[in-house]
Amino acid sequence: MTTPIDLEKDSEAAINAQVEKLHPSEIADILESLPQKQRDKLWQCVDQEKVLAHLSDGVRGELMQDMPPTEVAEAIQSMDTDDAVDVLQDLPDESVEKVLQAIDVQEYRRLRQVLFYPENTAGGLMNVDVLIVRTEMTLKQVLHYLRRLDKLPEKTDILMVIDKDNYYQGVLLITDLLTHALKLTVEKVMKTEMEAIPAHLSAHEVALLFEQRDLLSAPVTDEQGILVGRITIDDVVDVIRAEADHNLMSQAGLDKEDDMFAPILTTTRDRALWLGINLITAFLAAYVIGLFETTLDKVVALAVLMPIVASMGGIAGTQTLTIVIRGMAVGQITDTNTPFLLRKELAVSLLNGMMWALVVALIAILWFGSLKLGLILGSALIINLFCAALAGVLIPLLLRRLSIDPALAGGVVLTTVTDIIGFSAFLGLATVFLLHNV
Amino acid sequence: MTTPIDLEKDSEAAINAQVEKLHPSEIADILESLPQKQRDKLWQCVDQEKVLAHLSDGVRGELMQDMPPTEVAEAIQSMDTDDAVDVLQDLPDESVEKVLQAIDVQEYRRLRQVLFYPENTAGGLMNVDVLIVRTEMTLKQVLHYLRRLDKLPEKTDILMVIDKDNYYQGVLLITDLLTHALKLTVEKVMKTEMEAIPAHLSAHEVALLFEQRDLLSAPVTDEQGILVGRITIDDVVDVIRAEADHNLMSQAGLDKEDDMFAPILTTTRDRALWLGINLITAFLAAYVIGLFETTLDKVVALAVLMPIVASMGGIAGTQTLTIVIRGMAVGQITDTNTPFLLRKELAVSLLNGMMWALVVALIAILWFGSLKLGLILGSALIINLFCAALAGVLIPLLLRRLSIDPALAGGVVLTTVTDIIGFSAFLGLATVFLLHNV
Repeated sequence: MTTPIDLEKDSEAAINAQVEKLHPSEIADILESLPQKQRDKLWQCVDQEKVLAHLSDGVRGELMQDMPPTEVAEAIQSMDTDDAVDVLQDLPDESVEKVLQAIDVQEYRRLRQVLFYPENTAGGLMNVDVLIVRTEMTLKQVLHYLRRLDKLPEKTDILMVIDKDNYYQGVLLITDLLTHALKLTVEKVMKTEMEAIPAHLSAHEVALLFEQRDLLSAPVTDEQGILVGRITIDDVVDVIRAEADHNLMSQAGLDKEDDMFAPILTTTRDRALWLGINLITAFLAAYVIGLFETTLDKVVALAVLMPIVASMGGIAGTQTLTIVIRGMAVGQITDTNTPFLLRKELAVSLLNGMMWALVVALIAILWFGSLKLGLILGSALIINLFCAALAGVLIPLLLRRLSIDPALAGGVVLTTVTDIIGFSAFLGLATVFLLHNV
Repeated sequence: MTTPIDLEKDSEAAINAQVEKLHPSEIADILESLPQKQRDKLWQCVDQEKVLAHLSDGVRGELMQDMPPTEVAEAIQSMDTDDAVDVLQDLPDESVEKVLQAIDVQEYRRLRQVLFYPENTAGGLMNVDVLIVRTEMTLKQVLHYLRRLDKLPEKTDILMVIDKDNYYQGVLLITDLLTHALKLTVEKVMKTEMEAIPAHLSAHEVALLFEQRDLLSAPVTDEQGILVGRITIDDVVDVIRAEADHNLMSQAGLDKEDDMFAPILTTTRDRALWLGINLITAFLAAYVIGLFETTLDKVVALAVLMPIVASMGGIAGTQTLTIVIRGMAVGQITDTNTPFLLRKELAVSLLNGMMWALVVALIAILWFGSLKLGLILGSALIINLFCAALAGVLIPLLLRRLSIDPALAGGVVLTTVTDIIGFSAFLGLATVFLLHNV
């Protein structure tokens, strides 16, 4: 959907003309897909204040470095509260101070309300631009009140209803306002079944609620039940996208904000850690193989076949792990269904283990002409697939209990287990049955 | 957020009481997280017509099997068009006929309009319950028109504006209707900058548009520019979630609709294929190792160390692959930035390769007391990490050109490459420099 801009060849005037036709979020997308040098060049041609809110955290942080605090302050004042707070949270602490000093008092108060809540809670997601009506007003009064406002906040599909003590009571749908008799009071028409979202609820739970109830916007209340803001679906969509990115990227040890075009040294450093962690597990596997050096020395065919057992275990275990991690993400894994799930995964692993054991055993027998070798390979495969299923269910549950992100660490721990069990089962069985001729 | 229901112990009356307190989508979530037997039991206690629209395709298909066509027909008539069409598409063809015969003519026409478009296009996502006004109407006339309607369609934030030939002209925001002077015409107040979405646009592109523009709903037009329906954000959220699930699950060769509690035999069959494909790649690797049997026979330390090179290549390649697949999903990989991305990934791989080569070489030298072995291991690691970066960028691009889903096939192809290159580089170098004593 994006028009190609050639930053190498186009003149500044031509670039400006191109950019003006685009939505700020489209410009943000283009910026994110440009190598650094071209990115900096384009950044000078765009309306920075408008584009800022649409950039991903990493790229935004990088581009804001050279913006003077007064310009950041100005940009922030034209943003939704939640976006403004997002931007502030990406700045180094000393810059935040400078920016906050440059904005006006009313704006400062507005930001403070949201900055008070952690970023990944309902409070951190909310906007404070809420239209409020009281239970005793008639619809006619509400319509008059709205007409006196110059402009309603964007994405207003509901008005929040409070009683005289500011306690949240329910919502008045704009569509109901348009179709009900004008003399009715708000109390008669409002929907009370929509519970307000507590400000401390996690962003993850907020997203689940929006999805389950097909909400467009929802009221947020503090612990006392006082209305403090509203959450709109566009911010929830961002949460859903960020969680999905996180699940996908962290399996490869990457950050969800990973910038495709970050400088080479930054990327090298970010990736080195993950390679280092995996190197440890690789050496663990090597150590296990080393324990069987004598066996390997005598039967070289074992070295040829041993990666098969480890690799199949890793694949089967990853399938189980993925199912469990996804189930946990959508809240479908409970204490009551875990035993059932475990039994099922073990049964599946045994069936698939026996089937593929037959296949690998046959191939090994034909290849190396040794019935014993085939039987050993097949048995090791069954053992490893069974352990892989066990690990695939238990590892994410255990990690969650330890407050370690299963999407990040699950894969490494799992393949460590399947490698070690795979190599030691195969080489161990071989040592007993091939070498000692039992 | 879900109340625990104990299907083993609770009486039917107790279950009914629990269920009545829940939103249909919460009931759907519970159904999906139950083993089959308990799922069937709960299904008998719930308002099936209401829950149907909220179930995932797989579970819905299974539960609908025993519903009589007349009941399905009744359920469908109370659903949004797009949900109704979703349900129909999950039924076997002969059941669809029976259901369509049982619904009334007007409803049949409504469904036909959407059934005409493929499921994963704007046309397949849209609803046809559109509120339409004409350019020459005054706001006062619009308000009167709305007030005559009993109820506005859910999630109506905009009215669609058409000219006298039914061509789409723009949208009238409900919030503008409430704040602008009543004597103004629709033409004066409507927003013309919102382009309609062409009915044949892919669901993926629709989701990107909604995200970029922060839309709540958008008009859909056919090739002639005639308004045919509207898409609301709740359906777009479903698309985003489904795509995210697909990306996550297909990496492990799983279907995004994979039912955690499907019967054991179904799951065993679904997973067997993936294991079989990976078994082929494992045997390919074994074949490559087999080529170096003589070398392995002479230096058993090679068997101990060889999985390290292959495994590190797989890890590094997966990082690159994940970045590229995600970049392709959000549309940030273009022909112009691919060469840059490739150069960068290769540079990163060389830097990380050299660094970790030093580490593994040192460990190997200390472990086996052979300088040569260490140098061979380090060199093989550098070669494999370089090839892994190359493969990580090129494989997904190549697969996309061949119209094969990179999220599904990318990982298998990549690890086949890194296994084969890893084993042959390490064992090949060892054959030349250790055995032949060059």
